Amino acid sequence: MRIGFIGVGVMGRGMVANLLKRGHEVTVYTRTKAKAQEVLDAGARWADSPAQAASQAQAVITIVGYPKDVEQVYFGPQGVLEGAKPGAVLIDMTTTSPKLSQRIYQAAKAKGLAALDAPVSGGDAGARQGTLAIMVGGDRKAFDRMMPVFEAMGQNIRYEGGPGCGQHAKMANQIAIAGTLAGVCEALTYARKAGLDQSLLIDTIKTGAAGSWQLTGNGTKMVAGDYAPGFYIKHFIKDMKLAGEEGADRGLELPVLQTVLAMFQQLDQAGYGDEGTQALIRKYMD
Amino acid sequence: MRIGFIGVGVMGRGMVANLLKRGHEVTVYTRTKAKAQEVLDAGARWADSPAQAASQAQAVITIVGYPKDVEQVYFGPQGVLEGAKPGAVLIDMTTTSPKLSQRIYQAAKAKGLAALDAPVSGGDAGARQGTLAIMVGGDRKAFDRMMPVFEAMGQNIRYEGGPGCGQHAKMANQIAIAGTLAGVCEALTYARKAGLDQSLLIDTIKTGAAGSWQLTGNGTKMVAGDYAPGFYIKHFIKDMKLAGEEGADRGLELPVLQTVLAMFQQLDQAGYGDEGTQALIRKYMD
Repeated sequence: MRIGFIGVGVMGRGMVANLLKRGHEVTVYTRTKAKAQEVLDAGARWADSPAQAASQAQAVITIVGYPKDVEQVYFGPQGVLEGAKPGAVLIDMTTTSPKLSQRIYQAAKAKGLAALDAPVSGGDAGARQGTLAIMVGGDRKAFDRMMPVFEAMGQNIRYEGGPGCGQHAKMANQIAIAGTLAGVCEALTYARKAGLDQSLLIDTIKTGAAGSWQLTGNGTKMVAGDYAPGFYIKHFIKDMKLAGEEGADRGLELPVLQTVLAMFQQLDQAGYGDEGTQALIRKYMD
Repeated sequence: MRIGFIGVGVMGRGMVANLLKRGHEVTVYTRTKAKAQEVLDAGARWADSPAQAASQAQAVITIVGYPKDVEQVYFGPQGVLEGAKPGAVLIDMTTTSPKLSQRIYQAAKAKGLAALDAPVSGGDAGARQGTLAIMVGGDRKAFDRMMPVFEAMGQNIRYEGGPGCGQHAKMANQIAIAGTLAGVCEALTYARKAGLDQSLLIDTIKTGAAGSWQLTGNGTKMVAGDYAPGFYIKHFIKDMKLAGEEGADRGLELPVLQTVLAMFQQLDQAGYGDEGTQALIRKYMD
């Protein structure tokens, strides 16, 4: 398939490489051209704007940073909506607001384009290995048509419902992570204060009712004092804020999410926004 | 080995059955004799008091309800400490206060007895199948000596440190569960409010960073509206209160644990204490 790909950061790089491996023709645009060099060397073509990247594409994939970046890429001058040709499917894989996904969907529809929201989970490792979970919202027909594209990048690919539902699923994913991660921090802190061997504790409890990806993955990093980002605190804050707002719109109180969000915001203000989410354990140190 | 076993409830029943299967001689005592009928039929002998159950035993195992029950069984009239003979090892497998475990340890030592605290995780299913995780505190030598007894009942058997350390490990286990379970409740509630298919959501996110035993096990029960107890709310409240108190003794703030404990206490006051912990989702219903 002819694919326009916008946003070649730590995630996009691996995703483009996997699309090329499956024989797709990929034209990329990203703000800092130097970041695209690796995928250009691997066979991708360069475009000078989102519009140009979209202009020949059957599928346009975007994965950028924040909702404002998504807005710029779609609605801004030389944006995707300006360049895409009727029949194309626009796929935003950024984790962003469900409302923004619905706005893109409507704007696309008015131009004879389909749009899917398809945020991912699995981090840069999942992007490189092609094992991302992909949560998709939009029209089922467009989802089915794009399956070969999704299958090049991920493994657990699910149609969650209409426009915005992919984003909603990702919000739910982040909400579950928030509570789990905080539980791991509190358990390991208790263990430390009680004089237990924290690594042994993880080995003891990981197979039972306390077991989780967060315990085994991030808990182990906490014990090692390794705060290198698998997933940035600053991005998790963005996601939790979106989730909290969407929840509030529906009259939902999410006390654990709010408690965890507040702790992360304090860490961000203290200058730790570029560390990984496991650095939440800092809030529990003396 | 000759084993005295005190407390033949939903957990003890399966544990005694597994000890008998491995050829141990088991003498049981429990408050309500009718509850012991099944294990008596399977070959256990009956004793009329904890002291009598302990009197011929090389190992005395107790697994009862609350700390006050443990106190009664060890220190009360006709209690374990009255009946046990020098050389015996006393093993309390109730989840209880680390301080109480240390008191038993000291009292036992004064009588020429060893004592281990060895709370378990894995529920009645784990007890039946002999797959319990067992977290052990006390003297290493006594732990090593009792390994054949532990191996008859469990699989993930760990020596966590001196007297009380088994209980501390169990506290940490329960703290991790509290946060994880609340995260699952909030994620599923968000999903419901956003109009997603909750079962599909669990399938989507369970393999990634949001994955946990609580999501797959209790989350699935929440979606089904199945509140039957795997683990009682009233017992979880006991554990979380102990954990909070032990944490506070060490100057620890555990905000997520406290938030979850408060919600469970409200459920208990509303009459749901005999439901399973997955009924926490009730706090998120309209």
